[in-house]
Amino acid sequence: MKSIEKILITTVPFGQYDDYPIKLLEANNIDYDINPLGRRLKAEELAEMIPSYSILIAGTEPIDENVLRKALNLKLISRVGIGLDNIDLHSAKEKGIIVSYTPDAPAPAVGELAIGLMLSTLRHIHLSNMNIHQNIWQRYSGFRLSQSTVGIIGVGRIGAKVINHLQGFGCKKILVNDIDEDKVYPDFENVEFAEKEKIYREADIISLHLPLSVETANLITKDEISCMKNNTILINTSRGGIINENDLYEALKTHRLYAAAIDTFIDEPYSGKLIELDNCLLTSHMGSMTSDCRAAMEVQATEEVVRYANKAALMGIVPDSEFFNQKQM
Amino acid sequence: MKSIEKILITTVPFGQYDDYPIKLLEANNIDYDINPLGRRLKAEELAEMIPSYSILIAGTEPIDENVLRKALNLKLISRVGIGLDNIDLHSAKEKGIIVSYTPDAPAPAVGELAIGLMLSTLRHIHLSNMNIHQNIWQRYSGFRLSQSTVGIIGVGRIGAKVINHLQGFGCKKILVNDIDEDKVYPDFENVEFAEKEKIYREADIISLHLPLSVETANLITKDEISCMKNNTILINTSRGGIINENDLYEALKTHRLYAAAIDTFIDEPYSGKLIELDNCLLTSHMGSMTSDCRAAMEVQATEEVVRYANKAALMGIVPDSEFFNQKQM
Repeated sequence: MKSIEKILITTVPFGQYDDYPIKLLEANNIDYDINPLGRRLKAEELAEMIPSYSILIAGTEPIDENVLRKALNLKLISRVGIGLDNIDLHSAKEKGIIVSYTPDAPAPAVGELAIGLMLSTLRHIHLSNMNIHQNIWQRYSGFRLSQSTVGIIGVGRIGAKVINHLQGFGCKKILVNDIDEDKVYPDFENVEFAEKEKIYREADIISLHLPLSVETANLITKDEISCMKNNTILINTSRGGIINENDLYEALKTHRLYAAAIDTFIDEPYSGKLIELDNCLLTSHMGSMTSDCRAAMEVQATEEVVRYANKAALMGIVPDSEFFNQKQM
Repeated sequence: MKSIEKILITTVPFGQYDDYPIKLLEANNIDYDINPLGRRLKAEELAEMIPSYSILIAGTEPIDENVLRKALNLKLISRVGIGLDNIDLHSAKEKGIIVSYTPDAPAPAVGELAIGLMLSTLRHIHLSNMNIHQNIWQRYSGFRLSQSTVGIIGVGRIGAKVINHLQGFGCKKILVNDIDEDKVYPDFENVEFAEKEKIYREADIISLHLPLSVETANLITKDEISCMKNNTILINTSRGGIINENDLYEALKTHRLYAAAIDTFIDEPYSGKLIELDNCLLTSHMGSMTSDCRAAMEVQATEEVVRYANKAALMGIVPDSEFFNQKQM
């Protein structure tokens, strides 16, 4: 029997690493369409497409109040991934639209990317590669991760992975901080809790692993940067907007900071001013982009859709704490 | 009292990360000249400079039989670093020239670079960065280190560091092999000895940590590559010539291998064919290039010179095993 649900899959690529999600939809006789533009949708594009669909398998495109106003048949948003800053959770709730997500699936891939970004910036791997491919041989001197004090702000699923990976390096010190004041931190010898101000002052590398929320937007501006050491490296694999992009640009351009590595931006695809700077390593929101994690995210988000279509209990409904994050955004 | 020794420092930069080596020479009234060309010397350049000097503080420039024939006053070569493939040890011995080195100092920096190269190639960090800096947004899908079988060939000072760093990632398996058949391997749960052929067949990532010697030159040619999986990543931070550069070029160009990351080359500065290939991450022999390790190498090599000048016992004389490596090269 054909399901009455009609699905729009907005996140792309989809079903590429593993075709199980597609097979699962087909085995359950669920109709689906895949985002025909092949890139992240703009709000107005999604608003135009959305009216006839009852379920969205969603990526990071804006699902704001205007979009939801057009979503006359929408009953479920199944988000492929962890960040919810693109979805107006309160509007969705008002309209009786359920929001589910897959918060565990991307964490391992993001954690490894963060370490890769640290080592690339410490050793100028990306710059040396770019030079040699242009027939320029320049030996860069760098710093060692093992000799560094690393500050981790946000010790959730991803931050905890990063701390684990760092255990093989024996860093000088790992200073940790979380927005949750009752957070229990990993019990390693070189890990210690620190106030954010201490991390800004003392860390050689600061890596952010936070959701974008009213509390974290513009967490790092020129004021916080002014407390940092000149050799500090800033890493952001979480969400654009947590570091003020203009202030970061000024700090890197004037070499007030040593370097940054940024994977996420307020506007994506990113084409802003940071592009001008050699000391800013830029990647294209690839945190979750490993074949295993993408597949897990897509499978989990699709399984949720199948549960919904079959009237089974859902397993990934977003908790109240995520609503709280958006209280005044 | 002025020392009778006259020193030529060929390795550059020197005294830049830490001026202690320069101060040490001056405090001991030892005359020194620093390589006036500011880059790695060619054999004929060194041969022309060398006659008047009694001590060389040496880098990776060729110190072959022809050079040594001109080294009429040379009594000590104090090598800043670990590799000895650039020095004709047997010729030096015949001429009564002592050769010392600093094998421990560079290991920590090389080990970290190897992990950085693994993560960059697994996640295409360097390619994404190059794209965005040219205003191209392309999301690359990659693989996870934690999901990989890593083969380490050469478990000396550096290979052992790499295995340690990998402990924080919980790799699927770490297969290890060494040219020394009596080698004792690190006792970790996921580390197991394997014949090289098994490593070629099974590893997703193969990282080389070997000296260049008669046994290791052309260790990896098209024959060995033909046993590898299509998704294999080859990492070489040890010495050029261990992987056959032509065969590597063909394998990468035809996508017989997934990717490679190469820090060392037969001819440096490198400007060969690998430059053409996007799937070959290239760095400019930067293994030892962290401020702390470069400083330690320079300090240790200079301390050896001071010991020699003051007729104290030397501490870094190269052992017989290094001579054995060169027996037929």
